[in-house]
Formats: sequence, C-alpha cells, structure tokens
Amino acid sequence: MTEIPIQKRILSANDEVAAENRTAFTRYGILVVNVMASPGAGKTSVILATAERLPSGLRPGVIEGDLASSIDTERVLAAGIPAVQINTGGSCHLDAPMIRSALPSLPLDRLDLPFIENVGNLVCPAEFDLGASRAVVVASVPEGHDKPYKYPGMFAEADAVLLNKSDLVTYFDFDIDHFRRGVAMVNPNATLFVVSCRTGEGLDDWVKWLTEQPG
Amino acid sequence: MTEIPIQKRILSANDEVAAENRTAFTRYGILVVNVMASPGAGKTSVILATAERLPSGLRPGVIEGDLASSIDTERVLAAGIPAVQINTGGSCHLDAPMIRSALPSLPLDRLDLPFIENVGNLVCPAEFDLGASRAVVVASVPEGHDKPYKYPGMFAEADAVLLNKSDLVTYFDFDIDHFRRGVAMVNPNATLFVVSCRTGEGLDDWVKWLTEQPG
Repeated sequence: MTEIPIQKRILSANDEVAAENRTAFTRYGILVVNVMASPGAGKTSVILATAERLPSGLRPGVIEGDLASSIDTERVLAAGIPAVQINTGGSCHLDAPMIRSALPSLPLDRLDLPFIENVGNLVCPAEFDLGASRAVVVASVPEGHDKPYKYPGMFAEADAVLLNKSDLVTYFDFDIDHFRRGVAMVNPNATLFVVSCRTGEGLDDWVKWLTEQPG
Repeated sequence: MTEIPIQKRILSANDEVAAENRTAFTRYGILVVNVMASPGAGKTSVILATAERLPSGLRPGVIEGDLASSIDTERVLAAGIPAVQINTGGSCHLDAPMIRSALPSLPLDRLDLPFIENVGNLVCPAEFDLGASRAVVVASVPEGHDKPYKYPGMFAEADAVLLNKSDLVTYFDFDIDHFRRGVAMVNPNATLFVVSCRTGEGLDDWVKWLTEQPG
C-alpha cells in the first residue's frame, strides 16, 4: 500500500524537472526529439540517417542514453555531430534530471534539432517525461509485427512511429498492415513511416514530417 | 534518500516468494528456465524449437509474460504445449508473486521442463529472482553485436546465452567474436550457443546442454 504515493512523488519530481527542461528548450527555440525503441531497433542509425538528410542550416545534436558504454556517442561524434553520453548505470530509462545534467555539455545555442536517444527498452522510457518536444518510437521488422499489441504503452506515447529495417519485410514475413492496425489501435494520432536506413526507403518523408513540426 | 530502503523491502519480499517458488519446483523435480530477451529476439521461437527437440519423455510447459495480449500463449498452445498467460499490465518484468499466482494453472505434476518467457526487456527482468533453476538470455543478430557491452547486467545473470537468427550474420555484418568477447567479459561462466530457429543451426547443442543440467 505504501508504494503508490511514493511512486507519485517520484513522477511528480521528474515532471517538475521535465517542465524546466521544456522551458529551456523553448528559450533556445529548439525541437527536441525523444527517440525510444527496443535494443538494436536502429535508433542511432535513424538519428544519423536523419541528420544526413536535414535541410542545410538545421543543426542536429544528440544526447545518448545507455546503461553502459559510449559506443553510440563515438559513432555520432565520428559523423561530426555534437553528442553527450549519459550512462544510467542500472536504470532502464532516462529521466528529466539526467537530461538537465547533460545540457551544459551541449552547445544548445548552436543547435536546432537535438535528439535524445533513450535506453533501449520498449516499456519504461515511455513513463518518464523528459521535457522533449516530440516522442518517436523506432520499431524494426526483425522484432515482428505484433509489437504494438504487446507493448501498447510505448506506442501510445509516440507522435511518430518509424518501422525500420523495411528491407527485411519479405525475409521475416512481416505483415505491415497488421503492424499498422496495431499502431492505429493504441494511438490513432501517431504518424507511421516505413523506413530502411540501409536502402534509404521512406527517410525523406520522415525528415519532411520532422522538419515541418512546429517548435 | 527514502527510495533505497523501500526498494530493498520490495526486492526482499520478491525474494521470499522466489524461494517458495524454488521449493515448489524442487518438490516437483522440475527444471524451470527463465528466458529473457529484448522484444522480438525470438523467445517464443526458441522455446518452441527447443520443445520440438526434447528427448521423448521430457514434457515442456510455458508461463508467458507480456504487458498485454495472449499472442504467444496461443502459439504455444497451438503446438500442444501447456501454457498460461500472465499480463503484467504496465510492469516491465515478471516477479516471483506473478509466477506463484500462475502455477495452479499449470499441470506441474505432469511437466519436466517449464519455461518462463519473461517480458521483452533487456534490463529490468534481470533484477527479479523468480525462483527459476536457470536463466537464459536470447540475443539476436539484428540487434547488433554490441548488446553485451550496452546491457551488461542482463548478460551477467545468464547461465546460457543464445544468439538467435544466426542465418542473418552476413546480412548484418555481425561480428560473432566481438559479441562472444562481450559476453565473456561480463560473464565468464555463461555458455554461448549460436542458433537459428529458421535453419535449426546450433539448436541440438543447446538442447543437449539444457537436458544435461542437474535439477
């Protein structure tokens, strides 16, 4: 019986910092995108492929969240994109205070579109507001077409869903319509993009949508 | 400051029930295998492929854990294997009390090798003892060869690691040696099996290992 009010208090403290983050992002006039996915769905690849296709003048940045390692940050830095690593230790998600702590390490006054790459996890990250402007869920074909039905909470939070690794649809006998119906069932407002970072399929449409989002 | 002792109390209550579960499993003389993985790594496929290859007389069963849906349980039942579904609602992992609640729905006196298919999540399930006899982590090639480095806590818990979807190693430029070194680094005692539920590669070795485990 005691856990419930404490859970509420933790969430509320997180939400307060998320609101502060949101205020800071508005002050800088930047669109911050929280990218969530299962481990290995292709979050970093999507961010890099998106950065490559941004109209000139739109400057990306990345906050990388991982339990351990700096593998993804090294990849982003190698592409010439400002990045900062958060190692959560045991924590299965990023929270708003972690984002606040990372902000001084990014040149926010020289960025337009910072991405937050959350910990690979199709459950917990959806429960923590970071103050981001948009939430994007990256699913991938090898995970199977049943994911929206099995992990509805995550898909319910998404402004956009990217179905990545579309070049493998035939190999995995993946039913895109079944996946699409699942997304629509839990979240009729999410926009779905079928993409492949390998072939480039669908990425232009996704970047167009992203860059047309009001701040 | 208040969260730490409460966290301890929750874990301790879980551990008490896990010990009860373990006692029950010992009484029935069954080997219970906790199968953990990212969403879509192929937990259900591995369980079904394993069940198909068990020596005659060894009877499998499955406790299915999902946030929502009964998709996997229907698949297991269709294969003629006793199964019970646990829907965790929002919870990102199974816990010992959930397992205890599910046990009366399985014919334990007529099973030898019940599998617990945990919620798809490469973080939280590792933190909750269910009372199982063995922990198995299923990774998959499309997730990338860096997973042991990024999610060390999960791989540290494994008695065996199955690298599934090995038929895609070339397509994903997956470095098996890099993956193997990552597993060995966080868990020198884990046995690694490279398998494909599509081609059958490696499954006989895995089943041999599993059926030779002392109860």
